[in-house]
Amino acid sequence: MKVFVLNGPSLNMLGERQPLIYGTTTLAEVEQMCRARASQHGFEVDFRQTNDEGRLVDWLQEARHGADGVVLNAAAFSHYSLAVRDAVQACGKPVIEVHISNIFAREEFRATSVISAVAVGVISGLGVQGYLAAIDALAGILGEKGAR
Amino acid sequence: MKVFVLNGPSLNMLGERQPLIYGTTTLAEVEQMCRARASQHGFEVDFRQTNDEGRLVDWLQEARHGADGVVLNAAAFSHYSLAVRDAVQACGKPVIEVHISNIFAREEFRATSVISAVAVGVISGLGVQGYLAAIDALAGILGEKGAR
Amino acid sequence: MKVFVLNGPSLNMLGERQPLIYGTTTLAEVEQMCRARASQHGFEVDFRQTNDEGRLVDWLQEARHGADGVVLNAAAFSHYSLAVRDAVQACGKPVIEVHISNIFAREEFRATSVISAVAVGVISGLGVQGYLAAIDALAGILGEKGAR
Amino acid sequence: MKVFVLNGPSLNMLGERQPLIYGTTTLAEVEQMCRARASQHGFEVDFRQTNDEGRLVDWLQEARHGADGVVLNAAAFSHYSLAVRDAVQACGKPVIEVHISNIFAREEFRATSVISAVAVGVISGLGVQGYLAAIDALAGILGEKGAR
Amino acid sequence: MKVFVLNGPSLNMLGERQPLIYGTTTLAEVEQMCRARASQHGFEVDFRQTNDEGRLVDWLQEARHGADGVVLNAAAFSHYSLAVRDAVQACGKPVIEVHISNIFAREEFRATSVISAVAVGVISGLGVQGYLAAIDALAGILGEKGAR
Amino acid sequence: MKVFVLNGPSLNMLGERQPLIYGTTTLAEVEQMCRARASQHGFEVDFRQTNDEGRLVDWLQEARHGADGVVLNAAAFSHYSLAVRDAVQACGKPVIEVHISNIFAREEFRATSVISAVAVGVISGLGVQGYLAAIDALAGILGEKGAR
Amino acid sequence: MKVFVLNGPSLNMLGERQPLIYGTTTLAEVEQMCRARASQHGFEVDFRQTNDEGRLVDWLQEARHGADGVVLNAAAFSHYSLAVRDAVQACGKPVIEVHISNIFAREEFRATSVISAVAVGVISGLGVQGYLAAIDALAGILGEKGAR
Amino acid sequence: MKVFVLNGPSLNMLGERQPLIYGTTTLAEVEQMCRARASQHGFEVDFRQTNDEGRLVDWLQEARHGADGVVLNAAAFSHYSLAVRDAVQACGKPVIEVHISNIFAREEFRATSVISAVAVGVISGLGVQGYLAAIDALAGILGEKGAR
Amino acid sequence: MKVFVLNGPSLNMLGERQPLIYGTTTLAEVEQMCRARASQHGFEVDFRQTNDEGRLVDWLQEARHGADGVVLNAAAFSHYSLAVRDAVQACGKPVIEVHISNIFAREEFRATSVISAVAVGVISGLGVQGYLAAIDALAGILGEKGAR
Amino acid sequence: MKVFVLNGPSLNMLGERQPLIYGTTTLAEVEQMCRARASQHGFEVDFRQTNDEGRLVDWLQEARHGADGVVLNAAAFSHYSLAVRDAVQACGKPVIEVHISNIFAREEFRATSVISAVAVGVISGLGVQGYLAAIDALAGILGEKGAR
Amino acid sequence: MKVFVLNGPSLNMLGERQPLIYGTTTLAEVEQMCRARASQHGFEVDFRQTNDEGRLVDWLQEARHGADGVVLNAAAFSHYSLAVRDAVQACGKPVIEVHISNIFAREEFRATSVISAVAVGVISGLGVQGYLAAIDALAGILGEKGAR
Amino acid sequence: MKVFVLNGPSLNMLGERQPLIYGTTTLAEVEQMCRARASQHGFEVDFRQTNDEGRLVDWLQEARHGADGVVLNAAAFSHYSLAVRDAVQACGKPVIEVHISNIFAREEFRATSVISAVAVGVISGLGVQGYLAAIDALAGILGEKGAR
Repeated sequence: MKVFVLNGPSLNMLGERQPLIYGTTTLAEVEQMCRARASQHGFEVDFRQTNDEGRLVDWLQEARHGADGVVLNAAAFSHYSLAVRDAVQACGKPVIEVHISNIFAREEFRATSVISAVAVGVISGLGVQGYLAAIDALAGILGEKGAR
Repeated sequence: MKVFVLNGPSLNMLGERQPLIYGTTTLAEVEQMCRARASQHGFEVDFRQTNDEGRLVDWLQEARHGADGVVLNAAAFSHYSLAVRDAVQACGKPVIEVHISNIFAREEFRATSVISAVAVGVISGLGVQGYLAAIDALAGILGEKGAR
Repeated sequence: MKVFVLNGPSLNMLGERQPLIYGTTTLAEVEQMCRARASQHGFEVDFRQTNDEGRLVDWLQEARHGADGVVLNAAAFSHYSLAVRDAVQACGKPVIEVHISNIFAREEFRATSVISAVAVGVISGLGVQGYLAAIDALAGILGEKGAR
Repeated sequence: MKVFVLNGPSLNMLGERQPLIYGTTTLAEVEQMCRARASQHGFEVDFRQTNDEGRLVDWLQEARHGADGVVLNAAAFSHYSLAVRDAVQACGKPVIEVHISNIFAREEFRATSVISAVAVGVISGLGVQGYLAAIDALAGILGEKGAR
Repeated sequence: MKVFVLNGPSLNMLGERQPLIYGTTTLAEVEQMCRARASQHGFEVDFRQTNDEGRLVDWLQEARHGADGVVLNAAAFSHYSLAVRDAVQACGKPVIEVHISNIFAREEFRATSVISAVAVGVISGLGVQGYLAAIDALAGILGEKGAR
Repeated sequence: MKVFVLNGPSLNMLGERQPLIYGTTTLAEVEQMCRARASQHGFEVDFRQTNDEGRLVDWLQEARHGADGVVLNAAAFSHYSLAVRDAVQACGKPVIEVHISNIFAREEFRATSVISAVAVGVISGLGVQGYLAAIDALAGILGEKGAR
Repeated sequence: MKVFVLNGPSLNMLGERQPLIYGTTTLAEVEQMCRARASQHGFEVDFRQTNDEGRLVDWLQEARHGADGVVLNAAAFSHYSLAVRDAVQACGKPVIEVHISNIFAREEFRATSVISAVAVGVISGLGVQGYLAAIDALAGILGEKGAR
Repeated sequence: MKVFVLNGPSLNMLGERQPLIYGTTTLAEVEQMCRARASQHGFEVDFRQTNDEGRLVDWLQEARHGADGVVLNAAAFSHYSLAVRDAVQACGKPVIEVHISNIFAREEFRATSVISAVAVGVISGLGVQGYLAAIDALAGILGEKGAR
Repeated sequence: MKVFVLNGPSLNMLGERQPLIYGTTTLAEVEQMCRARASQHGFEVDFRQTNDEGRLVDWLQEARHGADGVVLNAAAFSHYSLAVRDAVQACGKPVIEVHISNIFAREEFRATSVISAVAVGVISGLGVQGYLAAIDALAGILGEKGAR
Repeated sequence: MKVFVLNGPSLNMLGERQPLIYGTTTLAEVEQMCRARASQHGFEVDFRQTNDEGRLVDWLQEARHGADGVVLNAAAFSHYSLAVRDAVQACGKPVIEVHISNIFAREEFRATSVISAVAVGVISGLGVQGYLAAIDALAGILGEKGAR
Repeated sequence: MKVFVLNGPSLNMLGERQPLIYGTTTLAEVEQMCRARASQHGFEVDFRQTNDEGRLVDWLQEARHGADGVVLNAAAFSHYSLAVRDAVQACGKPVIEVHISNIFAREEFRATSVISAVAVGVISGLGVQGYLAAIDALAGILGEKGAR
Repeated sequence: MKVFVLNGPSLNMLGERQPLIYGTTTLAEVEQMCRARASQHGFEVDFRQTNDEGRLVDWLQEARHGADGVVLNAAAFSHYSLAVRDAVQACGKPVIEVHISNIFAREEFRATSVISAVAVGVISGLGVQGYLAAIDALAGILGEKGAR
């Protein structure tokens, strides 16, 4: 089984940008942690980042036939990109939305995600561990679809 | 170390009430799953449910000296109980907010939690596995506070 | 058949508090009127009042197995208690919402009830006779479910 | 004594239009039920329907001298016709507002009635029995004005 | 097959009133154009105009048994007449909403039509050609219902 | 020269309905006062009242060729009838909006008139004298168009 | 009897500033017209203008003992100066609010006057003739208080 | 004379919880200060705290016959508990609302109290001295009812 | 003459994604239908799709010199992309906005298009036939500019 | 030590204007009461009133070097004067906001004070005794700064 | 040529009040900097400050004939003074709005200026250099009107 | 030192598109003007334009290590692109926001920029001279960081 871990704008600066909010772990390290956790579930991981909304839509479309589930940290796109929302809905695979910081404890505009309503679930504020929890959740969903 | 898992109104009806939304697992089964997962982290679990806002506030105050972390599914209180919010803020321990269903994909009033801004993080829509992810998250926070 | 008639906060002061708005009939008299009307339909009545939100939720849960229908005057809880709303929805029995005064003709905050959307119907402004109309309505619903 | 039962737009299609929402009883049958119930109180009934806002205003003005009370199902007019509202207020007779379906459980715009604030009371969601409850309520008001 | 083309308030002044916005074609000319286009599809056209909301509701009810489809330019009623909305919904025939001017490029209140949500589709800003496009669309819907 | 004085719903009850708000002068007396004042300006008056929105639209259309100016008290229609608004705009004659009571000092919904923006001017709260002031104003406008 | 005619900020520029909106009559000419009209009613006029909110409040307080009625064109203050509103309310004399242009047909912020609710009445859009109509209205009110 | 000093949720943690906002004085010390001040006015004090909304309503009802005035710090309940609001209104005794911190200088939701409109007065931000000022105010009200 | 038919994000999945809403016709089939209809008007068609907002802006700029008119289905971009809106406005060619589904009958956020105000017209809910109607409309506009 | 007691617009009419709301005590009497109370704390009082916003700003600037604390009843300015707010913030001295009537129980616009967020505290509804409570509060703050 | 540099309330405290926000430069120093820069463009500068809204209106009126352009820092007035807005619009000279701090990065109420829409342009957050940029901008506008 | 001057969507059409709003200067001319002004400060300029949000985010990230300051005219992105906002915040260099036209004097949606709160300052409405003023401002900030 294969999982896409898709990251939105400015997440390539993780560990460098605003470490008080986002921590000091780099995105490369997150990728390593995700691979390690995914391999425990027998998952392959395709880990990507882009600053480009159109490319993120492309990738979500690719997930329709190329992945079994998606972990999505759409970063700023979460709060306004209806194109990403439509792509989440159209991809037909379970998508878990992840935010490193607690978006509900920051600026008011961050408290609303236009993606949440079409995701399976949302994890916010658990730091980079949120990615791992999302992979675990996908394992649960994919392994035992009726059980939830 | 000790973790409180606190459940709000009508969660005692889990598995019976609206199974299409909340699933068929009972709260007793959730408690068993939590104990099992917590013991993997060497945690003791104190698992409780109440329909009473005042009692939930009492328990959160008790957590100030009686627990190292809290998993909180405040159910309907999440959306209006500022008393619970203040108690979360006052308890001085990391609190992870959990919702079984994806609150962002239901009625509009459920999409806002007055507690989220004072919780460490939020997990929504992962079914009863959300409790386990929250316990894992507390383990990460309590074991390696600086790491996040 | 059995009907719960559940009353929320400050309704124990009926007849004494703000008689220009709520009239001079006491809650004990309302109970008598309800019993009389219910007996015409062959119903047993369980008539209760509480100032406590948690207890009202308990009673609505009790109705799941202990009652065939509910007449609910949730008083001030009507306007914000999502816990009561969830309990109404979870109890699985027809619930008729009653207000003695016309809530639409008073302060703006009283014009919205968070319970109405999950109740079978709403009766507002008919004074204590609203309780009797609600019992009649339950008789209609319970006796001839398909007819409405 | 005489009661006007006034019905607004599209209620002539009752029983035919959207039966899942409005049921299968026709307006002619509702008229019969109203006459039967009214006669128990010794009331004469004048039962009318119109799609025309101006005519409904005319009838409410006629009620000023021609009726002792009014049962009013203004249908869609309830949500915006301030002309009907003014006519209710001007007619000087007790008006009970009735809705067959539970307007609070449908589209958002139906949850607000501009008439409710000037009606004596509101009955919503009790199906066609709501008309009978309204007639009973008028009986209570007209027979025992001080008692409520 | 028969199509109703129904026109709301002040459309009888077409060609005379505000020609910069509505053009110089008269309603009689629009009727001619509609008849010509409809006859290409083998449709009969019943073309009417009224300033009266009640009459428009009557006509939409008449369409239930007297027409196969409706082209509706409700003019100002589009923005507030829930009675017309209910009649559209109740008529059980496909209704295409037409506006001569682009309602989204004018006063803010014109940008919202309470009818659109219950119409099959909306055509705005194409001038009097919008009527013809609507007739074509009805032809498509009525001829090949499954194809859309 | 000819002036239409057009009155909306329930104004036929003037002097009888809510005299504390609307005073005790009847509409017939208002008509007399208007004729007297108009004759001072050499105006003919056509004074009408209707409860029917469609008829009011008809009359405003009639004013396009049949009147030199209009005094309009649209009563409740003022607050929502965009059909009347469009007819005011389309009639191409100066329209003065009149309200007997001070609409800005009553219920909140009365403080907004959808007609005001397309009227030449608005007179509110001067009692029945507002009609006379409106006729004077029309005299000024019609006699000395450039002077204002 | 004495009437204060009080003018707010920038009205001293009347006739010079934005003549398309405010016309070409100067404030001095308005004063002349007011004196002429007032003398017809046997009134003395005290005509003033200020750009200063505090002075306008002073003058309204002075009116409490120094005037029998007030014509008030508070200009921009109308839309936010609660100090002027309170002074109108406190002065205890009938105040007629006048606007030269039709404030309801301009920028949205001009459509709301915080003063209107405490004025006797409002005249908007009649040009400088609005002052004269206001003086006439005061004559009516002061001469025949019970008649309105 | 007897005064109730009633404290809402989490106030039992005063001096311990968020001392930067609420100071270091404990609730026991506040009780002592209240008793001392009250005795200066010859008042007896009944000083209570609860986390339970229902109990607070009970106590306010008890005040109807058991107290001459109430000092109420409803804490978080102030911002949403309409049940407490109704109980304040129903108790029929003067109630002074007190907040230790300045609720207007904190989170936006704290700036609105649903209780203020039915309290005699509000004191916010004076620290624990606010309780004493409230007792003084009650003394003024109870001693010299007509004087204020 | 040449017409651009430009399609926004996820429209490449037409026929596959959510067929209950968008139908089973593929975008390639839509292109064929457009070419056929356009050739009837003697138009050449340039038919494109992109998930990328920037590319859509590029294409609209290209239309300034490379096309005579544009049919634009901006999909999700319609609801928030002010960059696309500005490009529509800047391209200086008539743009007809098309939506396959009726955007006014779906989620609330879809009911507002930021593009509509700068398009010539809008067609919503006519399925893929909407494209054809738009091409017809462009033919009308381009052939007979003054006629509309 | 010196305290400024600053009063805003129309407070010079205290005792005369709307005595049902503001009582019958005059501002001169309030000044006397303030002096008496202040002398108990060894304070000098500078007591002023103005209808002029600019002068109130001047006085608050003067307080920066000329006073140790300020009691401020800004009357109507409280609800909109951001200039007064900025001056409160800039003066660098503790300011206690006082309102004689309970601003939360009157018109909706009075329930919001733009000053409260930058004042130390707010006293509303205690009548003229509110001034005395404010002086006491200043004594507490100035005498024992760390104690609050 | 002559330029007015007009400063609103509390700007006389520049350098002393909240230096973290407004810096340590005094208004006298700003005046010096403005004079130096203006002389480079051959401008004379009239530099003024007032806490009084009326005086600021007076000065803007004076600019109509006394200045060629205006640099305006209206401080707190920017956010609510429609009198100042009207005076800007009426003065008929180019007005550049300046704010020392970045008003968009502070309290929400500061993010809206009622003056911006009638100013030529706005400079915010450039510190006291904003004044100089505004003078440069005026030089550009006055010297080369068509060039912008 | 190096300054990035970054331009968002449709700015490549400057001088051609809507010249009444944006003027006739082309972007190439703006670049020349910027280079000339920058060289006066000894700055190197990197001047770029893109219609692509992702590329603009890339460039802002590049500025983190490749530039000393940024002049940003994000055009339409200013009003909704939180991705650009986050990139501004993450780049760690002073960013001056520039708009050629006065965004506060146009459509309502243009009056809000989501970028302003994280920019150092904002310049709006000064035409292409706004770029030069921004470069001057950067010179001030970079040369004398503590001085502002």
